[in-house]
Amino acid sequence: MKKIAIYDSTLRDGAQAQGISYSVEDKLKIVERLDALGVRYIEAGNPGSNPKDLEFFERVRGMKLKHAKLIAFGATRKIGIKAEDDGNLRSILAAGTDAVAIFGKSWDYQVTEILRTGLDENLRMIGDTLRHLKQQGKEVVYDAEHFFDGWKANPDYALATLKAAAEAGADFLVLCDTNGGSFPDFVHEVTRQVAAQFTTPLGIHCHNDCEMAVANSVAAVQAGARQVQGTINGIGERCGNANLCAIIPNLQLKLGFACVPPENMASLATVARAVSEIANMPLNEKAAYVGADAFAHKGGMHVDAVVKNPVSYEHIDPELVGNSRRTLMSEVAGRSTLLARIRAVDPKIGKDSPETKKIIERLKQLEHEGYHFEAAEQSFELVVRKMLGKYTPFFELVEFKVMVNEPSVDNMNSSAMIKIRVGDETEITAAEGDGPVNALDKAVRKALERFYPAIGEIRLTDYKVRVLDSKEASAAKVRVLIESTDQRENWTTIGVSTDIIDASWHALVDSIEYKLVREQEAGRG
Amino acid sequence: MKKIAIYDSTLRDGAQAQGISYSVEDKLKIVERLDALGVRYIEAGNPGSNPKDLEFFERVRGMKLKHAKLIAFGATRKIGIKAEDDGNLRSILAAGTDAVAIFGKSWDYQVTEILRTGLDENLRMIGDTLRHLKQQGKEVVYDAEHFFDGWKANPDYALATLKAAAEAGADFLVLCDTNGGSFPDFVHEVTRQVAAQFTTPLGIHCHNDCEMAVANSVAAVQAGARQVQGTINGIGERCGNANLCAIIPNLQLKLGFACVPPENMASLATVARAVSEIANMPLNEKAAYVGADAFAHKGGMHVDAVVKNPVSYEHIDPELVGNSRRTLMSEVAGRSTLLARIRAVDPKIGKDSPETKKIIERLKQLEHEGYHFEAAEQSFELVVRKMLGKYTPFFELVEFKVMVNEPSVDNMNSSAMIKIRVGDETEITAAEGDGPVNALDKAVRKALERFYPAIGEIRLTDYKVRVLDSKEASAAKVRVLIESTDQRENWTTIGVSTDIIDASWHALVDSIEYKLVREQEAGRG
Repeated sequence: MKKIAIYDSTLRDGAQAQGISYSVEDKLKIVERLDALGVRYIEAGNPGSNPKDLEFFERVRGMKLKHAKLIAFGATRKIGIKAEDDGNLRSILAAGTDAVAIFGKSWDYQVTEILRTGLDENLRMIGDTLRHLKQQGKEVVYDAEHFFDGWKANPDYALATLKAAAEAGADFLVLCDTNGGSFPDFVHEVTRQVAAQFTTPLGIHCHNDCEMAVANSVAAVQAGARQVQGTINGIGERCGNANLCAIIPNLQLKLGFACVPPENMASLATVARAVSEIANMPLNEKAAYVGADAFAHKGGMHVDAVVKNPVSYEHIDPELVGNSRRTLMSEVAGRSTLLARIRAVDPKIGKDSPETKKIIERLKQLEHEGYHFEAAEQSFELVVRKMLGKYTPFFELVEFKVMVNEPSVDNMNSSAMIKIRVGDETEITAAEGDGPVNALDKAVRKALERFYPAIGEIRLTDYKVRVLDSKEASAAKVRVLIESTDQRENWTTIGVSTDIIDASWHALVDSIEYKLVREQEAGRG
Repeated sequence: MKKIAIYDSTLRDGAQAQGISYSVEDKLKIVERLDALGVRYIEAGNPGSNPKDLEFFERVRGMKLKHAKLIAFGATRKIGIKAEDDGNLRSILAAGTDAVAIFGKSWDYQVTEILRTGLDENLRMIGDTLRHLKQQGKEVVYDAEHFFDGWKANPDYALATLKAAAEAGADFLVLCDTNGGSFPDFVHEVTRQVAAQFTTPLGIHCHNDCEMAVANSVAAVQAGARQVQGTINGIGERCGNANLCAIIPNLQLKLGFACVPPENMASLATVARAVSEIANMPLNEKAAYVGADAFAHKGGMHVDAVVKNPVSYEHIDPELVGNSRRTLMSEVAGRSTLLARIRAVDPKIGKDSPETKKIIERLKQLEHEGYHFEAAEQSFELVVRKMLGKYTPFFELVEFKVMVNEPSVDNMNSSAMIKIRVGDETEITAAEGDGPVNALDKAVRKALERFYPAIGEIRLTDYKVRVLDSKEASAAKVRVLIESTDQRENWTTIGVSTDIIDASWHALVDSIEYKLVREQEAGRG
């Protein structure tokens, strides 16, 4: 099995993406995840251009990495000075990593028009920089920026820049499709020709501007490249970098290249989700391999066929990458999907039971109102329980009043008063909070806790709002999803209303009710 | 220039995506957009499996289409009956389209294990169905489901199914990568071999499960396919269908195939955005060609180079597809980005003016608090104006109180009282609404309208909420973006707070202030 060195740049090139702003803590957490996955290189920052990165490199030195080498990244030396006098190179060395990456120009136009120096001086800049770093004992990855555009414009010069790097001792020559404009057949052909001329191993670095970055990276490997640069979830500037979460399984599961230790492949979906959370960039649910929808089946016919045999509509077993199959509930969904979920509550229900028909009717009505149970399976379970009589209400709302004040009172701008009934008893209480939903959440839990102490275990972990018909703007319907956990289990509940407080209230109530149902079933309630 | 027939399935295969549920109105609006773009075929529904689709086909008959043919879609006849007795085929004919698409099995395993019939009967099902439809005078597109998997398992049988379709008069033979597991080199090779054996033109239908659908579609065209099936924005089941918004410019702008009338290419970004709005699926901002980030530059060095010459970091001119260059403001952004925006307010400010430094400091502080001006350029303009003294406050908030009641009073669950000051006058008023933000929005406009009648022209067109640190759940910071219009201009403003009402308030105030600044400048205020 041929080995491919996976080179992750989520922390460096990924930081160029709109909306990304990592703290040092974030970066350390991501390093830990990448190392556990088993990538070979982690390009972690540009200490010359970003002083915050030096702090990161100092702190990361304490971490013991199992698989990965850290990389400090920067440019070739400035025009007309010695490499040892270059401040940026000193910063790169100060980062104290075993390996470094240096980018240089390979497109003649970029040298003369953007850098504004001579073609020969650029070759010297590459050679001097790499020799200096090799003398300091570093492993050096050389990134040939704009290589494919350079090849089109002046292939001899593009090759001369690689030659300068190779002769200075580069450990990898990385061909970069910096503008993301290349296609797989071209990348394959150029990589093949370059590979024939150098003994230094090649790498590939692609951008997704033509939605081709994954295909281009795979094509380069097929043509001989042995290092692949990319980012988790394809995070990066413009349309993003090549997405390692697709490239790794494509190469390893489909083409038999060794990218990460085989036993780690099943953590891929978790790593993708963790990095997206740390970076605070929502994971694309439709992402290949790792997205929540990647193995989700909706059409009734497809669902039926997948139940017969997954190979019908699945290109791999989702468990190989730590993902799982989902069958979506919706008007298009076949009865078999629904039936499986109904039977989880009551195994006696059959395909043609009158209850099944009633539940489908109710589901259609709720979908029409804006509910979507695809993402809120626990709210759907409550709907089924209520319709099957498998549910006794735990409490009843008498009323609540939520007040928001500007200017705020005592630093809290929201307060909620709530009155609930449990059996024959009522409880009235109040709480204040940062915002109306927070105040209401605190108040309802405070009111219920003496009846149901287990409520104290619930922690809300996510709160999402989606405006359903944004053309109505501030009077539009909103859908609120709440994710909760009690350490044993995570669950998601939903509420829909024209009022965000009301929608949040319904999702909160479902979250509490779901927890109490589970407690009851476990005999803990 | 070779012509490629673009075949859109946003309305049919796209409807299989999680979260998609089109109304008949939605479908008519999408047909209009697709026809205006100039696609050749619009696969609009499966009247046999979805009765709602028949209503749609009746209504669409009244539309005059300039470029596109509508397609009714369905399966080959059922096992063991005559095509003319098949209810689904009758529904397809009842749709009254000039062209139809029929899918059939080409993978032997699917025939014997999922369909559960003989290999010969499957060939007869294909032949009978197509002959029947051709006798009714239809143009017939034949979709060979699972063709690439079928080719791997039993190439002779896969070819036999195509032969059955071709002999029965198919106008296109479409090779489908139904499970999305194929790679471009394989798709190219198989398409080339098939093309050598048939005179009937070939089509390609790909799914994105390996993030390869665009590359696979382009590879098939390079190997001889002359029809490309896909969807706008790649909407579709699991990881989506092949994304026409990347395929069309890839083929037309880069490889010289004619897909849509050249004068329509510049409407691509608008079509992508419109379809995503109608389908209520947020457009991926990182989408190739059409995403808001596709030509957005953040790194200071990149921004400087793009200003020198766009070819440095752009693979095409964004205006070719109706998109535009954006330079993002952020801690990484170079001063040149900022300066351009500051100068729009005051052309006298220079790179080294003390004002520029102060604005950068303020920007950093606001970004630290969770503001992101990348999407809210008008709020940023207000920040700049305030710092440059180019702003006189239009009004001052004295206080507001928002109340949410459950159960609701008089069918309105929220009310807002507001007191504002304009010059020496104060105004106190109140309004009720569907939810607290709606009530507050109505109240503030009501209070201000007698001072500034132009406020009556503002219409809020979108309201977005993002939870910034979802780990804090209901007490997390939220970022609210409000889009407004007055028919002349659209603008986006932002508010950040731990309280959604407070965040909405700040965004609302910015929206009103921006409008009043524009009125003042135009001499209308």
